[in-house]
Amino acid sequence: MIINGGSSSGKTGIVRCLQAVLEEPWLAFGIDDFVEAMPAAMEGSAGGLEIGPDGEVSAGPAFRELEAAWMAGIIAMCRAGARVIIDDVFLSGAGSQQRWRDVIGDVETLWVGVHCPPEVVTGRELARGDRVPGMAAKQAFIVHEGVTYDVEVDSANAESIDCARIIAAHLK
Amino acid sequence: MIINGGSSSGKTGIVRCLQAVLEEPWLAFGIDDFVEAMPAAMEGSAGGLEIGPDGEVSAGPAFRELEAAWMAGIIAMCRAGARVIIDDVFLSGAGSQQRWRDVIGDVETLWVGVHCPPEVVTGRELARGDRVPGMAAKQAFIVHEGVTYDVEVDSANAESIDCARIIAAHLK
Amino acid sequence: MIINGGSSSGKTGIVRCLQAVLEEPWLAFGIDDFVEAMPAAMEGSAGGLEIGPDGEVSAGPAFRELEAAWMAGIIAMCRAGARVIIDDVFLSGAGSQQRWRDVIGDVETLWVGVHCPPEVVTGRELARGDRVPGMAAKQAFIVHEGVTYDVEVDSANAESIDCARIIAAHLK
Amino acid sequence: MIINGGSSSGKTGIVRCLQAVLEEPWLAFGIDDFVEAMPAAMEGSAGGLEIGPDGEVSAGPAFRELEAAWMAGIIAMCRAGARVIIDDVFLSGAGSQQRWRDVIGDVETLWVGVHCPPEVVTGRELARGDRVPGMAAKQAFIVHEGVTYDVEVDSANAESIDCARIIAAHLK
Repeated sequence: MIINGGSSSGKTGIVRCLQAVLEEPWLAFGIDDFVEAMPAAMEGSAGGLEIGPDGEVSAGPAFRELEAAWMAGIIAMCRAGARVIIDDVFLSGAGSQQRWRDVIGDVETLWVGVHCPPEVVTGRELARGDRVPGMAAKQAFIVHEGVTYDVEVDSANAESIDCARIIAAHLK
Repeated sequence: MIINGGSSSGKTGIVRCLQAVLEEPWLAFGIDDFVEAMPAAMEGSAGGLEIGPDGEVSAGPAFRELEAAWMAGIIAMCRAGARVIIDDVFLSGAGSQQRWRDVIGDVETLWVGVHCPPEVVTGRELARGDRVPGMAAKQAFIVHEGVTYDVEVDSANAESIDCARIIAAHLK
Repeated sequence: MIINGGSSSGKTGIVRCLQAVLEEPWLAFGIDDFVEAMPAAMEGSAGGLEIGPDGEVSAGPAFRELEAAWMAGIIAMCRAGARVIIDDVFLSGAGSQQRWRDVIGDVETLWVGVHCPPEVVTGRELARGDRVPGMAAKQAFIVHEGVTYDVEVDSANAESIDCARIIAAHLK
Repeated sequence: MIINGGSSSGKTGIVRCLQAVLEEPWLAFGIDDFVEAMPAAMEGSAGGLEIGPDGEVSAGPAFRELEAAWMAGIIAMCRAGARVIIDDVFLSGAGSQQRWRDVIGDVETLWVGVHCPPEVVTGRELARGDRVPGMAAKQAFIVHEGVTYDVEVDSANAESIDCARIIAAHLK
């Protein structure tokens, strides 16, 4: 299952609720875990991950190369029998989805979109207090551009647990 | 300003938004900071802070004694000129409010209540993933019993930033 | 590269230093990341991961099954071109090493042992403040039983950065 | 008790060990808690707290004003009967000590210095991975300039628990 949504759209909370409501054990990995696994020096470096003063994120070639290996490894966990929930931020919209499709092959995948309008994510970004202001609003629409989903939820008007129940219902 | 609400009612997010929307700098301290400041051995000990398997919290005499000194110190910061936002969980409802009143004296105080029904906080507790399940629902109503407020917000039906704006408007 | 050592032996600090001193970018994944990826309900459950009152850790069949898929996925990242540092706690000593060997195949691996005596890890466990007391001492020797290494460091008598430099020198 | 030392000198670990070895319950507060309590916008702002690209820290007048109120409040907790361990970074050396003396009055105080040479704290800063590189080395000596202590420990050559025992012995 791949869950896509912008920063502060509530993906992490939805994933935790999904892990609680689904009967089988599902592992959860996110793009944030990948960033955490990188050398600290790759954050803020050309080639690595750069976050601009207004929250725009740009990923360089060294980032993309390692990320491709990470994606292949996560899908390998699925092939090895694990149920996996991936949460990602499709900075390139349809292009990001295609990158996943290239490694997924025939692994069965539920595509989930988490929508939340800019004005709401901006407030939630402030409430979290640990994010660069502006990032959330910038990503609210672009991450969904050209992406196709099996199920879409609106986290501005539904609690995480309710989004999780809607998503879980599509798994059966 | 003293903000009271049960676990997972969204107090921390509201406080961060308040700090961002208020023009003057306000310091934020919460009962969680006090618990963090205690020796680790006082958590889970008789006399200290005990959290039962279903999330019921009970505070013993050693906890209460240190907490009283902490409360006096926080109010002393106000007397020394700092603007302070305190977030607390009034486990004894009106009794907890009285304990604050005993140390507040003539320090000007805005009393704020954050309401959120049990079914909503239960879901948010699950989404946070780091709390003992059941605690949030148990506290949803009891923390407000007999407490009087200057302003009350409903965090189930308003975003943190909107709650913060409502509260900020009452400061002027 | 697979780094094995007991709880509080300083593996995480050594890994961060390694990422800083190594010229090429290396991804770092640890058994703690796997535990974090599991549903919260699998911690403390039969079949999952149980931590006893004295810090003894036991992993059940559901844990082991998912972990095997995780291990296969991490090694798949290596095959896909990523340099990876894995930090693990070999609760079964030589048996744990064999489980890695089963998935590693012909992927080049540097085996690293981090030694730290029980009396030192017990103090460091206390200083960290977020671990079940007793776990560190229990694991200090057993994780190394029957395990063979390419390089071994003593984190009681060398700083993390010095351990990292010793390990890095063995990569060339 | 006031513990002074530069960034990454190991104060936090020593404080946790102190709380564990001391018989009476002691509350622990640090300058990091104060920074955490400030509005996020005061970090990185003129007047607030600025951290330069090489790790130099400068505190502006708005920071100093709020900090003075915080210091007064912490000492008020002592007057109200709490035993308190304060950990601070004396950026102005003797000047910082004098600022504490101004609010301490007749409250009994044990002054503790934690020494750790630049080359060691630089490595530990790297191992922590969440600090601006360079800050630790810059502070290693300046925080002790002109400061007088009741007890001094060397965290480069002693574990946190051993430093804690040395300090605890001076309380009696």
